[in-house]
Amino acid sequence: MTARPISIDVIRIPTSGPGDVSGLLALIDAGEIAPSEILAVLGKTEGNGGVNDFTREYAVAALREALAPRLGLAPHAVEEKIAFVMSGGTEGVLSPHLTVFTRKSAGNGAATAKQAAQADSKRLSIGIAHTRDFLPEEIGRRAHIDETGRAVHQAMRDAGIDDPNDVHFVQIKCPLLTSERIEAAARRGHMTVTTGGYASMGFSRGASALGVALALGELEAVNEDRVLKDWSLFSSVASSSAGIELMHNVVIVMGNSAQSASPFVIAHGVMRDSIDLSAVLEALKRVGLGLADARTSGRLVNIFAKAEASPDGTVRGFRHTMLDDSDVGSTRHARAAVGGLIGGLSGTGAVYVSGGAEHQGPPGGGPVAVIARV
Amino acid sequence: MTARPISIDVIRIPTSGPGDVSGLLALIDAGEIAPSEILAVLGKTEGNGGVNDFTREYAVAALREALAPRLGLAPHAVEEKIAFVMSGGTEGVLSPHLTVFTRKSAGNGAATAKQAAQADSKRLSIGIAHTRDFLPEEIGRRAHIDETGRAVHQAMRDAGIDDPNDVHFVQIKCPLLTSERIEAAARRGHMTVTTGGYASMGFSRGASALGVALALGELEAVNEDRVLKDWSLFSSVASSSAGIELMHNVVIVMGNSAQSASPFVIAHGVMRDSIDLSAVLEALKRVGLGLADARTSGRLVNIFAKAEASPDGTVRGFRHTMLDDSDVGSTRHARAAVGGLIGGLSGTGAVYVSGGAEHQGPPGGGPVAVIARV
Amino acid sequence: MTARPISIDVIRIPTSGPGDVSGLLALIDAGEIAPSEILAVLGKTEGNGGVNDFTREYAVAALREALAPRLGLAPHAVEEKIAFVMSGGTEGVLSPHLTVFTRKSAGNGAATAKQAAQADSKRLSIGIAHTRDFLPEEIGRRAHIDETGRAVHQAMRDAGIDDPNDVHFVQIKCPLLTSERIEAAARRGHMTVTTGGYASMGFSRGASALGVALALGELEAVNEDRVLKDWSLFSSVASSSAGIELMHNVVIVMGNSAQSASPFVIAHGVMRDSIDLSAVLEALKRVGLGLADARTSGRLVNIFAKAEASPDGTVRGFRHTMLDDSDVGSTRHARAAVGGLIGGLSGTGAVYVSGGAEHQGPPGGGPVAVIARV
Amino acid sequence: MTARPISIDVIRIPTSGPGDVSGLLALIDAGEIAPSEILAVLGKTEGNGGVNDFTREYAVAALREALAPRLGLAPHAVEEKIAFVMSGGTEGVLSPHLTVFTRKSAGNGAATAKQAAQADSKRLSIGIAHTRDFLPEEIGRRAHIDETGRAVHQAMRDAGIDDPNDVHFVQIKCPLLTSERIEAAARRGHMTVTTGGYASMGFSRGASALGVALALGELEAVNEDRVLKDWSLFSSVASSSAGIELMHNVVIVMGNSAQSASPFVIAHGVMRDSIDLSAVLEALKRVGLGLADARTSGRLVNIFAKAEASPDGTVRGFRHTMLDDSDVGSTRHARAAVGGLIGGLSGTGAVYVSGGAEHQGPPGGGPVAVIARV
Repeated sequence: MTARPISIDVIRIPTSGPGDVSGLLALIDAGEIAPSEILAVLGKTEGNGGVNDFTREYAVAALREALAPRLGLAPHAVEEKIAFVMSGGTEGVLSPHLTVFTRKSAGNGAATAKQAAQADSKRLSIGIAHTRDFLPEEIGRRAHIDETGRAVHQAMRDAGIDDPNDVHFVQIKCPLLTSERIEAAARRGHMTVTTGGYASMGFSRGASALGVALALGELEAVNEDRVLKDWSLFSSVASSSAGIELMHNVVIVMGNSAQSASPFVIAHGVMRDSIDLSAVLEALKRVGLGLADARTSGRLVNIFAKAEASPDGTVRGFRHTMLDDSDVGSTRHARAAVGGLIGGLSGTGAVYVSGGAEHQGPPGGGPVAVIARV
Repeated sequence: MTARPISIDVIRIPTSGPGDVSGLLALIDAGEIAPSEILAVLGKTEGNGGVNDFTREYAVAALREALAPRLGLAPHAVEEKIAFVMSGGTEGVLSPHLTVFTRKSAGNGAATAKQAAQADSKRLSIGIAHTRDFLPEEIGRRAHIDETGRAVHQAMRDAGIDDPNDVHFVQIKCPLLTSERIEAAARRGHMTVTTGGYASMGFSRGASALGVALALGELEAVNEDRVLKDWSLFSSVASSSAGIELMHNVVIVMGNSAQSASPFVIAHGVMRDSIDLSAVLEALKRVGLGLADARTSGRLVNIFAKAEASPDGTVRGFRHTMLDDSDVGSTRHARAAVGGLIGGLSGTGAVYVSGGAEHQGPPGGGPVAVIARV
Repeated sequence: MTARPISIDVIRIPTSGPGDVSGLLALIDAGEIAPSEILAVLGKTEGNGGVNDFTREYAVAALREALAPRLGLAPHAVEEKIAFVMSGGTEGVLSPHLTVFTRKSAGNGAATAKQAAQADSKRLSIGIAHTRDFLPEEIGRRAHIDETGRAVHQAMRDAGIDDPNDVHFVQIKCPLLTSERIEAAARRGHMTVTTGGYASMGFSRGASALGVALALGELEAVNEDRVLKDWSLFSSVASSSAGIELMHNVVIVMGNSAQSASPFVIAHGVMRDSIDLSAVLEALKRVGLGLADARTSGRLVNIFAKAEASPDGTVRGFRHTMLDDSDVGSTRHARAAVGGLIGGLSGTGAVYVSGGAEHQGPPGGGPVAVIARV
Repeated sequence: MTARPISIDVIRIPTSGPGDVSGLLALIDAGEIAPSEILAVLGKTEGNGGVNDFTREYAVAALREALAPRLGLAPHAVEEKIAFVMSGGTEGVLSPHLTVFTRKSAGNGAATAKQAAQADSKRLSIGIAHTRDFLPEEIGRRAHIDETGRAVHQAMRDAGIDDPNDVHFVQIKCPLLTSERIEAAARRGHMTVTTGGYASMGFSRGASALGVALALGELEAVNEDRVLKDWSLFSSVASSSAGIELMHNVVIVMGNSAQSASPFVIAHGVMRDSIDLSAVLEALKRVGLGLADARTSGRLVNIFAKAEASPDGTVRGFRHTMLDDSDVGSTRHARAAVGGLIGGLSGTGAVYVSGGAEHQGPPGGGPVAVIARV
């Protein structure tokens, strides 16, 4: 009989602002979260989700400063130990919150041999990896794709997941270009993939997603000039968010593992467009939740989804106006819409809907993953 | 045996821009719409839905100019004959479109005595009325409420509806205040209800809705100082949209009438918040549509809903950020979110979701009406 | 003695909204403007100046409908006769208005031989030309540049201007790409220069400006791949505005001509950045206006300027944030800032400041032209 | 002979983002700024300047954390020692920066008796005071006005300024209302002055300014119901900025004092509207700077100005559109425009232009203060 060595816990914590760490600290003080076991924190912060969304780096700074004394580490070292991914933009009913993932060794073997023998007894596990820092001119290109792929494999090993089919969500935090970074590359004689800051976020998210697709065998090969060009290339489980606060990729693999004794499981579906109700229902069903009990059973922990404005300008044959709106960015539109749908299905706006799904799911759609208590 | 004198048709037409009348003209040219029978046009246009949303008046101007020669009327007279209500804002998956309502006498009695005797055989009917022009200082106050109520009764008579329970949606177009109008009132020594243009839209919508509630007996009395103060006062069927292009209210009553021989019926539900999936399912059920066939049967004609950011800053206990966002107005957020939910349930973004639900449904919620083929 | 055959008048008319033609009609009714003599109308309208700024096409539609009966033309024919250029965006102190240019033959020779002999007695003249319609994939590329150049020469001839040094402002209205146009090209197997609607406005403005530079001999040659790449290439007098309402370029050349008997003259300066006070003062000086009398003499008719966010992200060594703002487009920022400066110098916000100065003046700067009564 | 006990230094430091403290730390490390002498830091940060502008609190948090170890204080205590005022919004050419004010005793008497005897030898001095925390329902009302007045007197004493005519700028940081704060007051049975977060910023700024006017004798009395109603009531030197990060007022008085041995002087003018070039020139002249040397002499340290959209909707008779723009807040428009004008006059965008000038200068205008090296 093999004991399961990994135990994963997932806690969702509402926040009152991007700098609010009081909920997390209260749970630590109450003994419900051990700081040393925190592996990753995924958050939704209430910025615009664009280039000048400083709520992401502010939230990370606040978390870092708050956890440093509790971990006995310098603030900088906290970021090396814990993967922080803040996704900006809580449009519509979306509600700012943190999802904290902890990992510990499961101790004296919670799992029985019988459980371990059953394929469907695999439980939630997560793993982390970082790439090296990228140069501005590497963002959105070959090196960005390949380094991401390597980090995915590393994170799978960290999670105790061998089979790519057991991977249900790969969250990536990736860099973006600012005017300063573009200029810096130019001074060294290098052209960046784009000279637009907002546009660079798409390239960075897209290249990261294609790196996931390669790593998981969803694609066999991809040329860097296909990024943001060939929408038939995508990963069904990649979710990437660009932020101003880093120059490398942080990769978090979420899946089910026979080595995990977690009380949670994860599954995913693929939304083919922004109104794909059926895909969300299917993902819920795969963790055992029907239309009614998703909202009422208390078993649902969180939903993770990517949203984007369909690049052909239509949804099921009807024109949308997201891409031609010069006042409100298309990622804000898309998060609000998909957040409304998932909020309605799950009965809460405290879900993780992230914008900009380039090469993450089919064009106009995106992956949707559900974590639920068994 | 009593013949049913009224026949109502409803046609949804996508548009390629606020000035696009080509779809309507094509249907007229094909003989599918008789210009003289057009009673009302409800549209969603792709502006910001705020004070400076000129897409509404542009769309009305385009419709007026296009229909004038076909009706043998001057452009100005077209607006007196047909009720045009343009609701600005097609955020997220919402898709710009027109819904054209036509009315003609049903000719040689399509309905039998048996049908007329059955309560459930009532069919879609609509009626129209206008108030007088308001002074800027009247907007959002007593006169605004009372004149709206009178117009509702007039429109019910026009629709052949006696029982307030047969009224399922009352669409109102109402005015707003601009800097110029506020100044004009001030020069005459009168204070308007607010000095903010954007804020005035809420007062105008709210007073209009309370006028509906009084007219339908949902409320017995209401004091003008309760507008935008006492959220327990509301109508379950009112839907008001403020626009810069008029200074009076246009009232369109939609309901079921024993005098109608229309192939359509209407029903409504009341969303208690922005994620109230159950209320939309209930409204669909009342016209005989289940979760699956709403999207696939082809019987659904359109859904009409109001959306707003919950004034207490939360949705089911979780904080939303719509009211504190100084970049994107809360009505844009709310339309996008509710549009995402209703788009998901109906399988299309070409639905009429309108923002700003003050006193239209409970705080944070709003009425939702469904028109379907029998 | 040679009589001067051309007489040009320039009238500035405030508007109360994009559809407001009442000021123009009042001047026509008062006999101050003869509809048949209207050559061009340049307007500032209060939209966002971006892709979905429908105030431009709404204003043109309103002008067309209003002038059609007074010209005895169909609305469509009015647009062929008169050049309408609406520039969206009246941020900050900028005030919506129309500038109407009329041209008639000067009749019984206002100018003397002595005047004609003096170089400095050249007076304001304007000329118009149109290019053919462009395909979506031509926008921002070779054909766009070259056709614009040809139209500039044609418009110079129309204005009676031979010497390129007498050209002080070339206003161009050019098309932009929408999702629909991009898709249309893709269906025919052609890639557009960009897939972003907002980005396409820059390509269109830039290619148009380079066409002007070639036509006036400011540049000897330019490769299409230099558009939005090589900022050292620019015209000192080009001003282009992109709009959704057309697929060709409209070119308006403004300069001084010995054939004109106008009471007005024009001159220009080149702002090297957004705060280049000296360049505006220099342009004012060239039409004989000092710092004080620009604001007080009543001789100033209008100022025409282009504004843009410096592409290197700084102004005189200090970082600006216009290019990294995902809430407000950089053209809105730039118009507001340059409008504030020119408004302060001219004592009015009713000036024509237009955004997006790609290849129009040096990077971060732009041309500024002044029309004044002699 | 009386030695002058106070020495004030003023240093302007560009920032690369709201969390950037590297410039300040470099000056500390170089010995140019002594942390213990820092009295106040005024900053411009690149948020939207609205309710959800978290760049202000992020910047303060970063400064607090950075200075804490250098002052040997806990982060919280740093905020009690140093007055931090961050004004959000760097639209147009405005450039994010910090202005650091230090104060030390002047040591061995830099000033002679002769200097002290001359009225015009008064030099720059500043003083600080805090009010108590306000309840949400106090903001914008009587208590807010009166407590601010008291703090102004306290700060004048701190600055060594007796004569109100020697006060040239009073910078105040004041609180705003959020949905949560409004709800909290409502739960205790109290109505706040407004239920709109953005609107509350105006009430808070306005009440603060009226407190300054009372304290300096500019007004004899003011009723709380005049706030945002009677625009004839104003202070010519008040400048208030609302922020989410505090619930009390911080008051910084800047003026000239015979007790100061600073190498700087301050003077002010009053802009009567957003394009009042003359007022800025006058303020520059009062510190001895002409039109040309403001930009070139190197003596100018910084300009501090307030900007707002004229509440009557016009500037010198021409309509502006700032108040009717539902996409971009009027404070963003006004900062951009006035920043453009002052940037042009001073040759740099690194000036302190702050939005929302309710009761700060005449309606549509605002105070403008200049600090220059003698």
